[in-house]
Amino acid sequence: MTETLSHAASAADIVDGLTLEQKAALTSGASFWRTKQVGPVPSIMLTDGPHGVRKQDESADHLGINDSVKATCFPPAVALGSSFDPELLERVGVALGEEARAEGVGVLLGPGINIKRSPLCGRNFEYLSEDPIVSGVLGSALVRGLQSQGVGASLKHYAANNQEDDRMRVSADIDPRPLREIYLRGFQRVVEDEQPWTVMCSYNRVNGIPASEHHWLLTEVLRDDWGFDGLVVSDWGAVTNRVNALAAGLDLEMPANDGRSDAQLVAAVRAGELDESVLDTGATRVVSLVQRALAGADADASYDRDAHHGLAREAAAASIVLLRNEGGVLPLAPEASVAVIGEFARTPRFQGGGSSHINPTRVDSALEAIREVAGAGAVAFAPGFTIDGSDAAGLADEAVAAASAADVAVLFLGLPASLESEGYDRRDIELPVEQLELVDRVLAVNPNTVVVLSNGGVVRLAPFAERVPAILETWLLGQAGGGAVADVLYGAVNPAGRLTETVPVRLQDTPAWGNFPGEHGHVRYGEGLLVGYRWYDARELDVTYPFGHGLSYTTFEYGDAVVSSDDDGLALRVPVTNTGERDGAEVVQVYTSLPGSAVARAPRELKGFAKVALAAGERREVEVRVRRSDLAYWDTRVDLWLVEGGEYTVEVGASSRDIRGAVTVDVEGDPVRVPLTVESTIAEVMAHPVAGPMVAPAFAAMAADMLGGAHADGEATAESAGGLGIDAEGMMQMMGAMPIGRAVMFPGSPFGFEQLEQLIASANAPQA
Amino acid sequence: MTETLSHAASAADIVDGLTLEQKAALTSGASFWRTKQVGPVPSIMLTDGPHGVRKQDESADHLGINDSVKATCFPPAVALGSSFDPELLERVGVALGEEARAEGVGVLLGPGINIKRSPLCGRNFEYLSEDPIVSGVLGSALVRGLQSQGVGASLKHYAANNQEDDRMRVSADIDPRPLREIYLRGFQRVVEDEQPWTVMCSYNRVNGIPASEHHWLLTEVLRDDWGFDGLVVSDWGAVTNRVNALAAGLDLEMPANDGRSDAQLVAAVRAGELDESVLDTGATRVVSLVQRALAGADADASYDRDAHHGLAREAAAASIVLLRNEGGVLPLAPEASVAVIGEFARTPRFQGGGSSHINPTRVDSALEAIREVAGAGAVAFAPGFTIDGSDAAGLADEAVAAASAADVAVLFLGLPASLESEGYDRRDIELPVEQLELVDRVLAVNPNTVVVLSNGGVVRLAPFAERVPAILETWLLGQAGGGAVADVLYGAVNPAGRLTETVPVRLQDTPAWGNFPGEHGHVRYGEGLLVGYRWYDARELDVTYPFGHGLSYTTFEYGDAVVSSDDDGLALRVPVTNTGERDGAEVVQVYTSLPGSAVARAPRELKGFAKVALAAGERREVEVRVRRSDLAYWDTRVDLWLVEGGEYTVEVGASSRDIRGAVTVDVEGDPVRVPLTVESTIAEVMAHPVAGPMVAPAFAAMAADMLGGAHADGEATAESAGGLGIDAEGMMQMMGAMPIGRAVMFPGSPFGFEQLEQLIASANAPQA
Repeated sequence: MTETLSHAASAADIVDGLTLEQKAALTSGASFWRTKQVGPVPSIMLTDGPHGVRKQDESADHLGINDSVKATCFPPAVALGSSFDPELLERVGVALGEEARAEGVGVLLGPGINIKRSPLCGRNFEYLSEDPIVSGVLGSALVRGLQSQGVGASLKHYAANNQEDDRMRVSADIDPRPLREIYLRGFQRVVEDEQPWTVMCSYNRVNGIPASEHHWLLTEVLRDDWGFDGLVVSDWGAVTNRVNALAAGLDLEMPANDGRSDAQLVAAVRAGELDESVLDTGATRVVSLVQRALAGADADASYDRDAHHGLAREAAAASIVLLRNEGGVLPLAPEASVAVIGEFARTPRFQGGGSSHINPTRVDSALEAIREVAGAGAVAFAPGFTIDGSDAAGLADEAVAAASAADVAVLFLGLPASLESEGYDRRDIELPVEQLELVDRVLAVNPNTVVVLSNGGVVRLAPFAERVPAILETWLLGQAGGGAVADVLYGAVNPAGRLTETVPVRLQDTPAWGNFPGEHGHVRYGEGLLVGYRWYDARELDVTYPFGHGLSYTTFEYGDAVVSSDDDGLALRVPVTNTGERDGAEVVQVYTSLPGSAVARAPRELKGFAKVALAAGERREVEVRVRRSDLAYWDTRVDLWLVEGGEYTVEVGASSRDIRGAVTVDVEGDPVRVPLTVESTIAEVMAHPVAGPMVAPAFAAMAADMLGGAHADGEATAESAGGLGIDAEGMMQMMGAMPIGRAVMFPGSPFGFEQLEQLIASANAPQA
Repeated sequence: MTETLSHAASAADIVDGLTLEQKAALTSGASFWRTKQVGPVPSIMLTDGPHGVRKQDESADHLGINDSVKATCFPPAVALGSSFDPELLERVGVALGEEARAEGVGVLLGPGINIKRSPLCGRNFEYLSEDPIVSGVLGSALVRGLQSQGVGASLKHYAANNQEDDRMRVSADIDPRPLREIYLRGFQRVVEDEQPWTVMCSYNRVNGIPASEHHWLLTEVLRDDWGFDGLVVSDWGAVTNRVNALAAGLDLEMPANDGRSDAQLVAAVRAGELDESVLDTGATRVVSLVQRALAGADADASYDRDAHHGLAREAAAASIVLLRNEGGVLPLAPEASVAVIGEFARTPRFQGGGSSHINPTRVDSALEAIREVAGAGAVAFAPGFTIDGSDAAGLADEAVAAASAADVAVLFLGLPASLESEGYDRRDIELPVEQLELVDRVLAVNPNTVVVLSNGGVVRLAPFAERVPAILETWLLGQAGGGAVADVLYGAVNPAGRLTETVPVRLQDTPAWGNFPGEHGHVRYGEGLLVGYRWYDARELDVTYPFGHGLSYTTFEYGDAVVSSDDDGLALRVPVTNTGERDGAEVVQVYTSLPGSAVARAPRELKGFAKVALAAGERREVEVRVRRSDLAYWDTRVDLWLVEGGEYTVEVGASSRDIRGAVTVDVEGDPVRVPLTVESTIAEVMAHPVAGPMVAPAFAAMAADMLGGAHADGEATAESAGGLGIDAEGMMQMMGAMPIGRAVMFPGSPFGFEQLEQLIASANAPQA
């Protein structure tokens, strides 16, 4: 097959040789997972990702829900993100690429980098963060690794697919700034830095328009603004109007639909409703993708299952977040007797439901791994509860007895799989009540209790966060998570994960509360820019654990930071010392703000981070770079990214609420000139370099005249200066807010409308 | 003049006899405050309100800022609203009408019933409430009273004028439900119940379109939906495009603009860009308004200044809210020695700045009034601070000394006038720091301290709300407020005001925080429906004082409530007993909710209230009616008000957080039929009475098939039922959310697209 598609022939030349029907045929699937073989163009396979290869038995293809071939289940994005380690994610990407290539897969559908807008989103476990820079940097690393193996990524779900409820119809109604600065920023970074072979359009609508038909999203922003040169593929079943979708920039519709879409495209071209060149472009992109996939293919490729399992374990261990460790309960001494409690220790919850669900090559349980370290004799196990919550009473009693007899109780809590899946959202963020009750009972008999959490979305920890001495948030760790948990519990790995999302005190505190999941086809992103930690900081809300938080078995001290600025952005340098007795790694986080900014901003925004490994006692100067483009906000007046000039505050910290130092730096702003119009306010005109001096005398006289109305009769009160009871400052504020074109129409205006028009023309004229 | 305008001639006939130029001339002002005399149509005068007649000396007319003729300054809306007493507001309306008629004023520009979206809005003192039912009921009472005197009201500012910052340009971007249910609901009620002669369009844009050019607002909603038959007048200077504005339904542009607009209208008609009949309609409405004004005019009219001052005092006393009264500090004993502290006791702050600013007939100070009751000898006065905050140190020392020497300290705190005005918003909700410091110092020397507050917008009271034993919120009380404060302090009047807006703990807790006042021409109403108490309840936030709160010198006990339902709505009856030893009045508040509603709702919404005066010991059954239309929500699927059927919870309480009883009542829903389409979800189709039974077997088989993919090999885990790791319930949820037109396109669908189209057609066919 491959020899029929000359690598030398350009995709455009190949498309040139196809009939209209053949070109249309190229732009939709042959089956659930394959593109069509058309003329000289062979079929390639795309399969689900993102944290493993979900390749299904093609003969049993039926809605795509049957078991897939075995593959390594790496930690899902919720865990990988917590590593804050691009180098690690790149290696996971390489491994994913190896497995995909070995399975003959040309494109792996991932990574997913949607923003975690609400903890309720059922698919949050597939996403990296509530922050766009974290999502963009780590998403780039995955794409880089994967594509280095000649396998294409599919950056998804583009865009604003932040919930599962009504996901196939709901319109995400988002204002321009949050759309650009929060929801698209990560996509922009990955596209610009890594050029994923494909971008997957999402199911939902964005501001009323289906993503699959969204010309602005798929063409103007993605290609014209960001320079994307790959292919846009639909999410499976996202297309409702194939002709509109192609015209908007959706090249490949998946899966197959019985030739229906192809026929519609042919008919539209024949009827003159669709320019054939648009179809040519889509078909050419499909051919280019096929060429890339073929170039990367290797029929002899294989991969090392054991090595990949080892990498999965390394990645899992690096993803665990030590939320709390009072009194040095952790790491455990190998000689301590341990009561391992909780069904999840034996039956790990390591991935979520839906299209990302991997048929793992093997699965390690934490219980086995702990027994390997501590010896089976020192480890008692009690399930404590059932995962579905049934018949918990007797199990709890048994668990309490085990806890009271051990030096340490390690309590594995988590969410049942049924609560976290693609396809639907959660209704609350609670752990099952029988698990919470068990925490209380175990704590009562053994204060040396460690809680180990398995959950894909944030759960409320306030019920015990102040009482349990040690808490590990392990998220969903993939197939090797059991061993990774043991590694961290016993200190073979010093935990270095950090939260990429806030753990709120209550669901009612979360930004989207009251605006999630919407109703009747619309969801309003009412919190605007204030997503995640931006919200909690702006509203000064307590949180249980802040964004960026994570402890270590050692401690780190920050010296004085310095920051420098150049055309590329900022560079912050800060000496960090490992002041403890163990080797460890710190995630140095850099946040910026601009006091007195002319636009709304969160109190702090993450703009860069660096993960640095330091041996015990080691001191190193850490550099964190902030791209100038990451300082920009989206200016709706001119529809451009703009860096506002001014003195920025640059904070460096170990979390968003553990700021270790702050420095300031002057940043030169981008030039921007907003033309004057008759709707410009008097204040705007007065501030204009040309028009200001021309109008100032007239308006000063007018203001004086207005204030001259102050009376002085016997009943005058302090407030009655002038008939409006407004003082000079207030009057200037009120007058200043008047559009000048309307002010000059009032009786008594110092000049007329025609004079104003002349003034505006000279103000807007190009300056000599 | 008047005889030239025959009352018998219809306005349309009169307009028929005018030239094009004359008709255009009618639709804009002659001056700042007058319509034009045109042919047989005389000029009438409109003047600022809303809580007094601000008639300016016409000869000195110049931007409208010079002193006006003396008039009674009644309590501004912020105070009147707190009375929760429609009968009182109607009497104030009557008095306003008398004064307007005596001054030859045909239309008084008020009431203002905009919703208090944020406490920062500089003009909140001119508005009634954060709740639309309170705003609508009390706004109606004012219009009823005013118009009973043959003087027209101007219901303003229509619509969504909820801030002063950039008020002349900013677009209030609001989703359909909050727009209808919160921001328009009060306007709808006043228009439907009272037919104000005029409605004033606001300065701002609504969802991008200037209110002055908003055909949907000014014609489709106001006239077509609500049946408005009066005239729409512009806010002064709100028009930018006169032709668009007239076509949208803006009849009268104010003020004069030198004939410019008239010429534009004439030119547009001549050019065929504006249908002359549109101009005829606008001109006819102006003539009708003039006819109404002339019919109401009485050249001999006068009013009784003393009686109006008395009414102003009565209204002021009824508006005071007793926020706190620990240990029975209030009412004061006449024989107690009193230290009156605070400049506001001597120099009352009784109104806000801007167009509502009245030149009062007289002004009472609280200090004088207290001296009248207690005798000058028993009352020491110390200003304590200056209103502008300068030179406070020595004054505070003197005040502390006075406080320590008296039985009781009465501390008058408030906001300086410069912070509260039309034209600009506040930046915070803090009392001046020197006043807060003074509270601490006075409390330290005299625990018997009463704080009396003068402020037009909410201030943060958390700094002392738990420490000062008694707090009176007097808002801005109008010219007779001084006496009213003394009446309440000494118990001549038993306070019965209630908060029409929440006093939050912090500005950061308020609903619009982060979305106020917007930037670059847009403000997003991101909190949606959750305005005021709806927000604090939904997010379960503590507040300092809740909506509806207010104490009395007596106590009220509620018996068991019963509720009945009929076609007009609900009637709640509850026995209320005055269990104290003083006569007093209670505001019985009724809130509803619908547990399990299909749409988003606040936990409770005020739907009715009744103010009831009860003698000491008296028991009475109070009836509060809830209109059926007030139970409706705005359904965006069908663009209609809909009453959802179900079991409503009806709460009765003394405040939104002092619920005294709850009953439930079944309410029959309005019929609604949303047609099926290919984008209806499988769950929606399954729930459809016709289509459901037809598709159920096919989809049940499909679901069983999908779940049949469960495997049973050695590594199966509890979660791996099926290749997607989703259990039966989850699978049904995921499948149920699929639009059926897309589901049937997937390979393996139980039926095809053509069959689906037939199914939908039969489901949507009218039923036999």
